[in-house]
Amino acid sequence: MSWAGAGPPKIAVIGVGLIGGSIALAARERLGADVVGYDTSPPALAAALARGALDRTAATIADAVRDRDVVFVAVPVGRLSETVGAALAAAPEDCVVSDVGSTKRAVVAAHDDPRFVGGHPLAGAETSGVEHARADLFEGATWYLTPAPNTSGMPYERLHRVLRQLGARPTAIDPDTHDAILATISHLPHVVANVLVSQAAHALSEEDERLPATGPSFRDATRVAGASSAIWTDIYISNRVALATQIEQAMARLGAVRDALIAGDEAALTSWNEAAAIDRRRLLEAQLAGGPLFELRASVPNRPGVIAQLALELGRSGVNITDMALYPAADMSEGVVALWIAGEDEARRAQDLVRRLGFPVTGV
Amino acid sequence: MSWAGAGPPKIAVIGVGLIGGSIALAARERLGADVVGYDTSPPALAAALARGALDRTAATIADAVRDRDVVFVAVPVGRLSETVGAALAAAPEDCVVSDVGSTKRAVVAAHDDPRFVGGHPLAGAETSGVEHARADLFEGATWYLTPAPNTSGMPYERLHRVLRQLGARPTAIDPDTHDAILATISHLPHVVANVLVSQAAHALSEEDERLPATGPSFRDATRVAGASSAIWTDIYISNRVALATQIEQAMARLGAVRDALIAGDEAALTSWNEAAAIDRRRLLEAQLAGGPLFELRASVPNRPGVIAQLALELGRSGVNITDMALYPAADMSEGVVALWIAGEDEARRAQDLVRRLGFPVTGV
Repeated sequence: MSWAGAGPPKIAVIGVGLIGGSIALAARERLGADVVGYDTSPPALAAALARGALDRTAATIADAVRDRDVVFVAVPVGRLSETVGAALAAAPEDCVVSDVGSTKRAVVAAHDDPRFVGGHPLAGAETSGVEHARADLFEGATWYLTPAPNTSGMPYERLHRVLRQLGARPTAIDPDTHDAILATISHLPHVVANVLVSQAAHALSEEDERLPATGPSFRDATRVAGASSAIWTDIYISNRVALATQIEQAMARLGAVRDALIAGDEAALTSWNEAAAIDRRRLLEAQLAGGPLFELRASVPNRPGVIAQLALELGRSGVNITDMALYPAADMSEGVVALWIAGEDEARRAQDLVRRLGFPVTGV
Repeated sequence: MSWAGAGPPKIAVIGVGLIGGSIALAARERLGADVVGYDTSPPALAAALARGALDRTAATIADAVRDRDVVFVAVPVGRLSETVGAALAAAPEDCVVSDVGSTKRAVVAAHDDPRFVGGHPLAGAETSGVEHARADLFEGATWYLTPAPNTSGMPYERLHRVLRQLGARPTAIDPDTHDAILATISHLPHVVANVLVSQAAHALSEEDERLPATGPSFRDATRVAGASSAIWTDIYISNRVALATQIEQAMARLGAVRDALIAGDEAALTSWNEAAAIDRRRLLEAQLAGGPLFELRASVPNRPGVIAQLALELGRSGVNITDMALYPAADMSEGVVALWIAGEDEARRAQDLVRRLGFPVTGV
């Protein structure tokens, strides 16, 4: 008897960190699912149970998956293939096994099983651990799925339905395209951030012990520099073909800028910069359902409470801040706060409110 | 009769935007200086006068500088050399003329005059216009000065003293080193941000009309992409030698990462990433007088008022937020807020406070 139409699904989650924990929480809260959890770390497993993310814990992967309809493998990329293999070995015949790894080519190539569908939700990279898990982590999030030619229709349809119920937007994509996109929007920016900090840290110190003073734009550009090696070495290695290609392309683009600089070609530099401005706005707007994104910049004193005052004032008027960044002055006493607001009317209202608080603001 | 010891200086500011306007405001408020302003834009000049930044306006550069002790040229880099030339042509013999351009090699090479000292304050790049001008914009800011071999001692000493009174930290540097540093910490990150957005915007669209979904780390890395061409083409062109060198070095660093990826060299990737983590922390800490910087990450609902609540709570306890960034979830309903706090004790206190508000937080 198939699960379809036969009540809430039985789910196993292998690896109960931020992503696995959030899947478990959401499955219980939103689907009324029965959720079994397994983790190589007993404290993590206990924390997930205490958090209410699990109905029960399992002592082994085989125990966790034996009678399940859907299995999510949510372990670091370095342990992904072997863990998916262990789950498939013990899962029932009509089960669907998926994963949440941020690269897909390797794991998909390693498991030619009709029950396996690779997956990757674009959510929750900023923290880790089940204590940050949330039932609505996937609300509105793109969730890539990489069905293979021999993936069975029934498991795929079941997985798709569960993901919709978790609040996500499942989107089918082939593994190579997925890895190329992630190389472009995530892995390459990490590599570039590392390159920028190392180059800056060594530029001046060759002739001087001092480090150069850096500004807010440098800090923004390099916030992800030196992210956890425990996670990132695996990601780099598992996506090394696509990432090497993206690095190659970035080098070619940089080479073109260098050539324009050496030639002193102002027109080429201007049109290149204008194209980047258009590309940036298109990418930002593509993220948002709430209409085009507007950026306001206000000059504010950086004393405790000012950001509160600003946020409260906007909050009282129902203006929601999509994103914000504070750029302090060198002595931290004053600064500029950038606010990103979706929708022109909202942005204009925000601008008026900020102005009425007495802060100079540019923007809409 | 020299100005030294003879009361407040007579200052001219040529170009009354954010930087020029802030110099004028600070000179009047902090030094009691007599400040004359000139700008090619009559509305900008009128706004500076209305703002209280000027004692009077001048109709020409010659009129502005004729009886001055100190002249600041604060115009875009593209008009810098000619404007400095016009100021030097009309300035008295014992006047010191300086500028605030963000590249120094070209303007210094063009003006072999004992009265000229190149300058560049690291302040205020996030907004523009006299309405954002502040008397304390330069408080604690590094202000690079590029004295040449034939710069007279007296003008240099006078300029140095005025900058100290403006609150800045004047630091002598040779023009080539200055331009190399700025190429590394500012111009290269702008070039790289442009490359990242253009590559992302074109990666997927080659095979598809959709743009790829991007995350908060991508947005941070590319916030300065496509910055105003009116300003940046001039900066790129005027610093093209140093910037081309920095691009070349970045390409070499990227090439090394690509080679490690192709070789599948995990150990090399890990040690490269660890080195970047150390470099990032060193650069961040070098910015701060308040001790090492700690980064907290809290999961919060992204409803209006939450950031206010957080900031208020920290403010009440006297914890100052050095920098913050909000990473919303895909549906903007929840998110992670990153807080940067200077000093371990402060950071621990902040962590406790955030936890007591009921938000999961990782960090110290």
